[in-house]
This record gives sequence, structure tokens and C-alpha cells, in this order.
Amino acid sequence: MIDPVHPLPLLALAVGFLGLVAALAFHRMVQPASPGGARIQEFAAEIGHGAMTFLRGQYTWLAVLAAVIAGLITLLLPWEPWTPAAYLFGVVVTAVASHAGVRIATGANGRTAEAARVGGAQAGLRIAFRAAASVGFAVSGCGLLVVAIAFIVLSQLWGAEAWPHALVAVCLGASTTSLFARVGGGIFTKAADVGADLVGKVEEGLPEDDPRNPAVIADHVGDNVGAVAAVGTDLLESYIGSLVAPVALAAIVFASRSYLIPAMMLPLGVGIAGIVSALAATSLVRFRGDNFVAALRRGSLVATVIAAPATFGVVWWLMAGIDGVANPVGLWLAVVVGLTIGLAVGQITAWFTSDNYRAVKEVARQSQTGAATVIISGMAEGIRSAAYSVLAVATGVLLAFVAGDWALGSGGGIYGVTLAAIGLLSTLGMTVALSAYAPIADNAAGIVEMAGIHDEAHHATDILDAVGNATGAVARGFTIVSAAVTTLAVLAAFTRVVGLNSIDLTSPVTAVGLILGTIVPFLFTSLTLNAVGRAASRMIDEVRRQFREIPGLRAGAETAPPDYGACVQIATAGSLREMVLPGTLAVAAPLVIGFIDVEALAGFLAGSMICGFLLATFMVNAGGAWDSAKRLIEAGAFGGRGSQAHEAVVVGDGVGDSFKDTSGPALNVLVKLMTIVALVFSPAFVG
Amino acid sequence: MIDPVHPLPLLALAVGFLGLVAALAFHRMVQPASPGGARIQEFAAEIGHGAMTFLRGQYTWLAVLAAVIAGLITLLLPWEPWTPAAYLFGVVVTAVASHAGVRIATGANGRTAEAARVGGAQAGLRIAFRAAASVGFAVSGCGLLVVAIAFIVLSQLWGAEAWPHALVAVCLGASTTSLFARVGGGIFTKAADVGADLVGKVEEGLPEDDPRNPAVIADHVGDNVGAVAAVGTDLLESYIGSLVAPVALAAIVFASRSYLIPAMMLPLGVGIAGIVSALAATSLVRFRGDNFVAALRRGSLVATVIAAPATFGVVWWLMAGIDGVANPVGLWLAVVVGLTIGLAVGQITAWFTSDNYRAVKEVARQSQTGAATVIISGMAEGIRSAAYSVLAVATGVLLAFVAGDWALGSGGGIYGVTLAAIGLLSTLGMTVALSAYAPIADNAAGIVEMAGIHDEAHHATDILDAVGNATGAVARGFTIVSAAVTTLAVLAAFTRVVGLNSIDLTSPVTAVGLILGTIVPFLFTSLTLNAVGRAASRMIDEVRRQFREIPGLRAGAETAPPDYGACVQIATAGSLREMVLPGTLAVAAPLVIGFIDVEALAGFLAGSMICGFLLATFMVNAGGAWDSAKRLIEAGAFGGRGSQAHEAVVVGDGVGDSFKDTSGPALNVLVKLMTIVALVFSPAFVG
Repeated sequence: MIDPVHPLPLLALAVGFLGLVAALAFHRMVQPASPGGARIQEFAAEIGHGAMTFLRGQYTWLAVLAAVIAGLITLLLPWEPWTPAAYLFGVVVTAVASHAGVRIATGANGRTAEAARVGGAQAGLRIAFRAAASVGFAVSGCGLLVVAIAFIVLSQLWGAEAWPHALVAVCLGASTTSLFARVGGGIFTKAADVGADLVGKVEEGLPEDDPRNPAVIADHVGDNVGAVAAVGTDLLESYIGSLVAPVALAAIVFASRSYLIPAMMLPLGVGIAGIVSALAATSLVRFRGDNFVAALRRGSLVATVIAAPATFGVVWWLMAGIDGVANPVGLWLAVVVGLTIGLAVGQITAWFTSDNYRAVKEVARQSQTGAATVIISGMAEGIRSAAYSVLAVATGVLLAFVAGDWALGSGGGIYGVTLAAIGLLSTLGMTVALSAYAPIADNAAGIVEMAGIHDEAHHATDILDAVGNATGAVARGFTIVSAAVTTLAVLAAFTRVVGLNSIDLTSPVTAVGLILGTIVPFLFTSLTLNAVGRAASRMIDEVRRQFREIPGLRAGAETAPPDYGACVQIATAGSLREMVLPGTLAVAAPLVIGFIDVEALAGFLAGSMICGFLLATFMVNAGGAWDSAKRLIEAGAFGGRGSQAHEAVVVGDGVGDSFKDTSGPALNVLVKLMTIVALVFSPAFVG
Repeated sequence: MIDPVHPLPLLALAVGFLGLVAALAFHRMVQPASPGGARIQEFAAEIGHGAMTFLRGQYTWLAVLAAVIAGLITLLLPWEPWTPAAYLFGVVVTAVASHAGVRIATGANGRTAEAARVGGAQAGLRIAFRAAASVGFAVSGCGLLVVAIAFIVLSQLWGAEAWPHALVAVCLGASTTSLFARVGGGIFTKAADVGADLVGKVEEGLPEDDPRNPAVIADHVGDNVGAVAAVGTDLLESYIGSLVAPVALAAIVFASRSYLIPAMMLPLGVGIAGIVSALAATSLVRFRGDNFVAALRRGSLVATVIAAPATFGVVWWLMAGIDGVANPVGLWLAVVVGLTIGLAVGQITAWFTSDNYRAVKEVARQSQTGAATVIISGMAEGIRSAAYSVLAVATGVLLAFVAGDWALGSGGGIYGVTLAAIGLLSTLGMTVALSAYAPIADNAAGIVEMAGIHDEAHHATDILDAVGNATGAVARGFTIVSAAVTTLAVLAAFTRVVGLNSIDLTSPVTAVGLILGTIVPFLFTSLTLNAVGRAASRMIDEVRRQFREIPGLRAGAETAPPDYGACVQIATAGSLREMVLPGTLAVAAPLVIGFIDVEALAGFLAGSMICGFLLATFMVNAGGAWDSAKRLIEAGAFGGRGSQAHEAVVVGDGVGDSFKDTSGPALNVLVKLMTIVALVFSPAFVG
């Protein structure tokens, strides 16, 4: 049904492939760097090995859940081999991408440490940034490639009318992988962190990153699992969702219009523009002077600025001059709104989590009256940031609706909203890179410490590490907003696919659906907050056991090395076990409600999206504010380290860690997964 | 239009008056008790004086806001003198009721202390309970009386078609008073508490309730302001709202049906049954043995059990045998659902805030790993409790809808929901009494301490105080759920009054309305959390100043008494100043949105109700769990007072205090006020 010689899907294929080539090229630039001395290599290898242990454990469970969902697709949906195949394709490719990202990151941490040791912060940064860019392009290239392949295969080879629906199953595959990476990874990273801190630092009095601490490797593995695998898959899922939702939507809304085919291809076009812009921006970013954070954020900004005219070209190429497209520039404006939402949310995140602004200073100041006031003011700031973020996004969505409506008339508004989602996500490669940078730098600092290198290297890796905290906070804010906007796009597609004319809250069943939807993020958060506690206490028991049972461990005897692997195993098993309940909730809830009433399901999804977005932003930004307040005091404010103020902010940071790295971001996956489950299984609800 | 000789409104008038008589009778029972020695009388008088200072300050600002709103009513609504008059009537009467409640409570604290000193806990409890019952009947009797008077005057003397709308203005008056009592009072109570603790206890090392602490009187005033004025007015507002919303609803939905008049009178009938049941239950409650909490909760249960058959009689009297009333028993079932919601939420509150259950024990156990884990587990439990509460209420609302629909057919469902709200609130007198009991007992314990009485009395008042903590938690849970259900009833009336056929989320304007609605409780919470911090720091400055500038204060010289009044003044001024921003937000938001789009306003109100309900329950129950965990440890668990575990739970309790006494309950008033503003000004939006 789509012109087989139209060049756009093939171009998307090529550009997605180009992204992977760029990833490989950056990886190749990192590889020749010296891996360092034996001690550096040893710890880097331990971390890499631990990360693979976690991924293996995760993939075993992922295989089980994927088999269950593929079975449900087969049973509940009209029989069609392409749909489960597309689903499994989505699962496998995103799992491979996540695996590759972790491998790249864990291959670069030792090299970053060595480069910083020999050549200082600049040299270390170069290695870390290239590895991070490699992860960024691997994820974004993979995303475009997957959708392009599925698009071509399903539309050309299969070509039946239901092919956009099978395309959506690819996204459900990505969501399934993402559930494990985000929730399981989030629990792993905090359980390992708490285990390392509480027994090693507090009970045994070891310094941070001491090689005698049995949980120290698990802690470093957790950084990679959290900031590379979790963030990467989360954004990859959003990206794929934003690319496929408008196709499913257009197939229904524009079914009889002359611009059906271009409207289906436009998402891929925006994706092409985004990757090309990110490539251009990456080659333009230079690290001069000391302000690395500014250089990295400039990179994101440049990518956005280049993407704007590039997408204009794509929109004009595909949509101008077609009968019925009144104002093609409106479609471009919808994309630009998406790009702008990304910048706006980045700025809001900075206001609340960077120590350059009032919020973090205020939280730090409250440390003078104790931990309770630190918690209260951090919560007040986090809650406020959530209100601002949602306000910014709601404004953007409304503008995108107006732009789309202006461009295409009836049905165009909602299509405009889906275009904003792609616009927002088109430069995801930069964000993935910002996030992947953090664990590489953090690991490098830890390796220098563990390897016992006490010289300039220390100072250099500390600089790198501080940069990572700033970039990590921006990436967290971006994942939430992209999840929210993608969910909105998928939800819009869902309402059209099931043929809903309204989601009417005066109907009691719909109202109850909405209310149930708002409850689920609360329940899920309660589960993940407690899960961290339980997984952490298993870790604590294991670390205590090792100190008790391995004679000479505390003294640091060569003959008594800690069993790092056992800690990684326990964190892996614990985090995956804790996923069963929240994971089941996320998959089962939309299915149950969908079979009862489709309009109630739409209300349910709307409620969970809004409430999840608010809760996630609150938790992530409160966590970021506490983290930065702690750093501010550790840098000497209000008495510095060891003061009562420091004790107070350490409590805040302890609360914030679970908020920002586990429970908050887990909501991203929850709302996306529930909505995509609803969309994929929609034929079963209405059929 | 209503039969002038129908006995029901007159009976409501009589029963409301009977409630006031009961209040007076209980008050008369307390008065003859000995007011104690000179020291007891002195401190009791200081507290009473301080409370009046706060109320005077509050009423000045209340007069200003009431004048503004009365002006808006006059300007924006079709000219009609009855509407602003009804509004001002609501303001004045609720302010008088709140004033009377505080007077009764502050008149009983010294007597309770003296009775406990002479006759032990049983004797003290008898005084405190009678005073609390007096407050309870004053509030509930006043509520029924106000509505009955307005009902009779507006329907009989005026009798124009718009009289139900003027009746609604009475509720807006109650909301205005409640805004000040709840938000201003909430900020006052925590600012005074923090000021007393932080400077007096922490900096100066004084014990709790030391008369040398300049903020100690303000702290005791705060207890009355928070648990008597704030809870009493909050529930009074809900009660009035639940009585008037079905009248406004019935006037539209049942306009041409034969049962219009009985349907309008049924709310008053349920109110009558509720007060009579509460009177009967109060005369049946006996305090034998030691389990006072059980006796008090049994009182609530007995009131509910008596109310069920009593309301059946009322429903049968008014609605049976009327043409078009298919199943009058359905209306009674709706009322019973409301009564049951109250019991269910009481049980959920107990699960999460009583140390008899798992949640509080778990929070206390987490104290062994520090303050951060205490905060996280308290939040996890609070968040879960919110999900359960909302689930229970949503189930109840759906059942009430089904029951109402079965009874009356089309339109009956939504009327059933409003009946459930009245059912829930019909026994509010008991809840007000439970809440008013807490500050009387707490004040008595404080007065014994301040007066330097060190004997058996101490033990007796501590027992009384512990009872108050349990009853206070139950009352907090009840205020939230009653606010949510009342808001739902008012919202239902609003949608019918403005003639909305749908609240359709597929319309982008309505969706944005819903999203804005979910934001407002977040913004409001952020404002109130920060307000406590700011008001508290003004208090801290004043207390520090007194210790600095009054020589001999620390030594406790007779010639150097602290200036208690200055602290009360500062807390009063600070708390009222901090109200300006949140108060303006609450009044302005629905007006602005209503003039833009009425359907968006309905979405806005629905969003704020759901989100406010979730946030409030989370905060209040997390606060309750931390409070109980602290008490558990102070009773000796996990190392008891002075242990590291105790330090950790003290942090939790510090966070929880602002949650449960200020920010959480403030949301009750926010959502009710916004919804009632929308209903009162609805003619301006559609006209």
C-alpha cells in the first residue's frame, strides 16, 4: 500500500545504520586508549563482569515475561504471525542495544581513569565523552533502525491493512525490556548503594570506594545498570513509541485522506533529522576551558537548534503541496514545540536541582535546623517543580494541538501532539550520552580510589564525577517528560483505534477508571520504595556475613579478598524478585479494565499518566535537590563535611536516592507500558 | 413552592437547636468542676487568651476576604440581595461556632488537669470528654440549624426559583471561614510547635512544656486552633456542603418530577437522624476499664449503628409511596453506603497510623538503619494508605450511584452519591468530639507540667494525652474523606447547574483543565510546606530574642517572665500573612477557568479533587505513622528514648507534623472551596 520506491523509509534505514556506525566509530576511538595498570584493569573487569551477571539474570526473567506476553498476543488477538514476531523483535533488539550500551560504558571506565591519571581531567573527559556518545548513537541509531525495518517489512512484505497495529507491537517489546531495565535496574542500583554504604562505611568505618568493601563492585555495577541500561532503554522505548504512535493514529484518522502515506512517514523523517543533527552537534562540541557541564549542555542545545531547520526540510519534502494539507508549516511548528518542551523542562530541572539556583541553596540552608526541615523543603521544591513541569508540558501539548489543527483541520490536532512527542525525542542520542557519561566518570573515580592511586588522578576524576551529577539530573528530567508525552501520543492513538468519541467523566464507570488510574502510580511507588528496602537488607546481611566469615578481610589481607560476585548475585536476584508484583500490576491492570470497559480504560490511562508524571517529577527533582544540597555543603557551605548540617543533608540524600534513581523513574515505564499494552490489545477489547 | 406546613424543615430547626442545647448541657457539666489552683488557672487563662488573640487576628482578615467575595457575588451574579446575605450568614455563623468551640475547649483544659490531679485519669477523661462532646454538638447542631434556617427563609419567604442557588452561598460562607481556620490555623500550630521545640528544647535545653519557654503558650494555643477550630470548621463546611449540594442538584434534575420537594428535604432528614443518633450514642458511651480509645471509638460505631435505622425511617417517611420513586430503599442504601465509607476509612486510617498494626511497626523498625529509611518507609505506607482510601471511597461512590439509580432511575444515581455524602457526615458530631478531645487532654498534660505539679497527675494526664493521639488520627482521616465526598457532591451539582452533558477528556481544553486541576494541589502543598518554615523562623527569632533580652529568663526568675503574648502575636501575624498566596490561588483559579470554559472547569475540579484527596491522605497518614512510630520507640522499642533509633524517628515525626497538621488537611479546604466557588458563580459562567 505504500509506494515501494518511496525513498524515505530506506533513508531512515540508512540513517539508523549511520547512527550505529557512528557509535562504532566512537567506540573505536576509545578502544586504543591505555586500559591502565593491573589494578585498574582488575577492577574495571570486575565491574564489567558484574554488569553482565545482572544482565544475564535480567534476560532470563525477561524471556519468561516476553513469552507470556507473546502468548497473550497470540491468544487474545486475531491470529496473525506478524504481530507476535514484531513484538519479539522489539524485545530482542532493545535488549541487545541495552547490552551493547552497558558493554561500551564498562569498557571505558578503566580507560577514563587511566587517561585522567596520565593526562588530567581534559584527557579523561575526552574518553568518557566519546564512550558516552557511542552509547547515545547506539541507542538512537538502533531505535530508528528498528522502526524503519519493521515499517518496511510490515508495510511492504505484509501490507495488510492491520500492519500499523503490528508495528505498535514493536514498541510493546521495547516496553517489556524497559520494565526490567528500569525497575529491576533501579532496585539493583539502590540496594547495592545502600548495602555498600551502610555496612562498609557506617558499620565498618571504611572510606568510600574501599576495595575491602564486598559491595563496592555491586555499587559500581549499579551505576551502569541505572544510568546506562535503565535510562537508555527508557528513552529507547519512548523513542520507538513516539515513532509508531502517529502511524497507528494516522492509519485510522487519515484513512481516506490523500496525505495518509506521507503522514505515516513523517515520524521517520523527523527521526532522520534528529540523528543527523545529533551527529553534527557532536562533531561541533569542543571541550575548552573548565566548564565541562556548559560544554555538554551546549551540545544538547546545538543539536536542538540544528534539528529545527532540518525537520522543516523533512516536513516540506513530505507534506507540502499535497491536497488537503492546508498549512504544512503547522506540522513543523508542532515538531518545534516538542523540541522546545525538551529545552524548557531541562531549564526547570536545572532551577530545582542545580546549586546555581535558589531551590538547592534553600534546601541546604534548611540543614541548619536539622534533617526534618531539609526533607520538608526538598519536598516542597520537588512538588513545585512537578507543577511547573506539567504546566510547561500542558502548554506545549495545547500549542502542538493548535498547530496540527491549523495544518490539517479535523484530526490534525491530535496528530500534531504526536509530532511534538517525536520532536521532543528526536535528539535523544544527546540525552542518552549525557546520562551514560555519569557512570563512566563515577566508575573512573571509584576505580582510581580502589586501585589505591593517590595523586593528581584523584582530583581529575573528581572533576569528571561532578560533571556527571549535573548531566544525570538533566537526563532524568528528560526521561520523565518524554515518557509523559509519548504516553499521551500512544493514548491518543488508542482512543482512535478503539473508536472512542469521548472520555466522559460524567459517566461513573469512566470516572472510576480515572480514579483507579490515579491510584496505580501511588501503589507502584509504594511497592518500589519498599522493594529497595527489602533488597537492600538482603545485601546488608550478605556484606555483614562476609566481614564475619572471611578472616583478614577487614585488615585487607591479600589472601582474603571479598567475594564481590556474591554481592552482585544477591542484588540481582533481589531486584528481579521484587519486580514480580509491580510488573504484574503494570501488565494486568490495563488488560482487566480494558475487558470491562474501553472508555474506563482510556480514563484509567489518562489518570495514571497525569498522576505518574506529577509523582515522578516530584520524586526525581526532590532527589536531585537533596543531592545537590549535600554536594554544596560538602564543598564547604554551612560548616561543610562532618557538621550537623552535613548530617542533615545526608539524610535528605538518602531519601532522595531511592526517589530519583528507583521509584520516580520507574513510573515512566509504568505509564508507558500500561498504555502500550492497552493499544496492542485494543482489538481484543472491542472485537 | 414548598408546602409551608411540611413539618420536616421545622423539625430540622428543632433538632439543630436541640444539638446546641446538648452542647450547652455538656458545657454546664464541665463548668462546676474545680478550675484548680492559681498556677493551673494562670496557664489555662494564658492559653485561652492566646487563642482569642489568634481568632481576633483571623476574623479581621476573614472580614476582608468575606467582603471581597460578597462584592464579587454582587458584581458577577444577577443582582439578588438574598445571595450575598446567605453568604455572609454562612461566614458569620461558622465563625461564631468555631469561636464557641475554642472557648469551650480552652475552658476545659485547666479543669481536666485539676480533675486528673485529684481523681486520676478516669476523672480527667470525664471532664475532657464532656467538653469535647459539647464542641461536637455545638458544631453539628449549628450546621443543621444554619441550613434549616436558610432553607426555610429562602424557600418560604423568598420562594423564587433560584432559592437553592442562594442556599449554596451559605456553604461558600462556611468555606471562607474554614479556609482561615484550616490553613491559617495549620500554619500557626506548626510554627508555634517548631519555635517552642527548636529554641526552647534544642538550643536552650529546656524540657517539654517548660514555663520559661516563651513559645510554650503559643504551642498550646496551636493545639486548640488546629484540632478544635480547624477540624471543627472543616467538618462543619463539609456538613453544610453535603446538606445543600443535593438541594441544588435536585432543583435541576428533578425539576419536573413529583418527588422534587421530598428529595430536597431528605438531606435535612438524614441530618436530623444523625444528630439524634449521636445524642443517643453519647448517652450510651461509658468509660469502664482502661481502654479509653476503644470506648471512644465504640461511641462512633454506636452512633453509626443507630443512624442506620433512623435514616431508614426518614427515607420511608419522605419518599415511600410517591409516584416515580421505584425503590425508596435504594435511597436508604445510598445513605448507608456513606455511613459505611466512614467506618471503612476509619479502619484504613487505623491500619496505617496505629501501632497495633504492621505499618507503624515497620516504620519503627526502619529507625535502626537511620532517618532516611524511616522517611522512605513512612512515605511508602502513607502512599499506600492513600491508594486504599481512594479505592474504598471510589467503590462506595459507585455503589451509591447504583443504589440511587435503582431507586429513582435517570438522575437518581448522582443524587445517590450526594446522599452518601450526607450519610458519611451525619455523625460528624462524634468526629468533632474525638478531635476536640485531643487538645484538651494535651493542654491538660502541658498545664500540669508548666504548673510544676509532679505527682500522680502527671501519669494520669499522660494517659489522657495518649488517648488523644489515637482519636486525632481517626478524625484527620475522616475530615479528608468527608471533604472528598462532599466535593464530589458539589461537583455533581455544578455539572447539572451549568447544564454539562459531558466532561470529555478527548477535548483538549477539558484535558488541560483536568491537568491544571491536578497541578493546583501540588502548588498549594508546596506553598503551605514552605509557609510553615517561614512562619516558624519568625517564631524562632522572637524566642531567641526573648532569651537574649530578658535577663533572668533562663534561670526562671519570678521577676523575668517570658512574653508569651508576643509569641502568640507573631505566630498569628505570620500564619495569616502566609495565607494570602494560597488563599488567592484557591479563590481565583476556579473563577478564571470558569470564565474561559465551563467544561474545562469541571475537569479542573475533578482533577484537583482526586489529586488533592490522594496527596492529603498520603501526607496525613504518613504523618500519623511517623508519630506513632516515635511513640512506640519512646515506649521502649528498639532502644527507647535517646537511642539512635529515637533520633531517626524524631526526624520522621518532624516531617510528619507539617504533613498531618498543616499541608495535608489544608488540601481539604482547597478542593472544597474551589468547587463551591465554581457552583456559586456558575450563573456568571453560563450567563
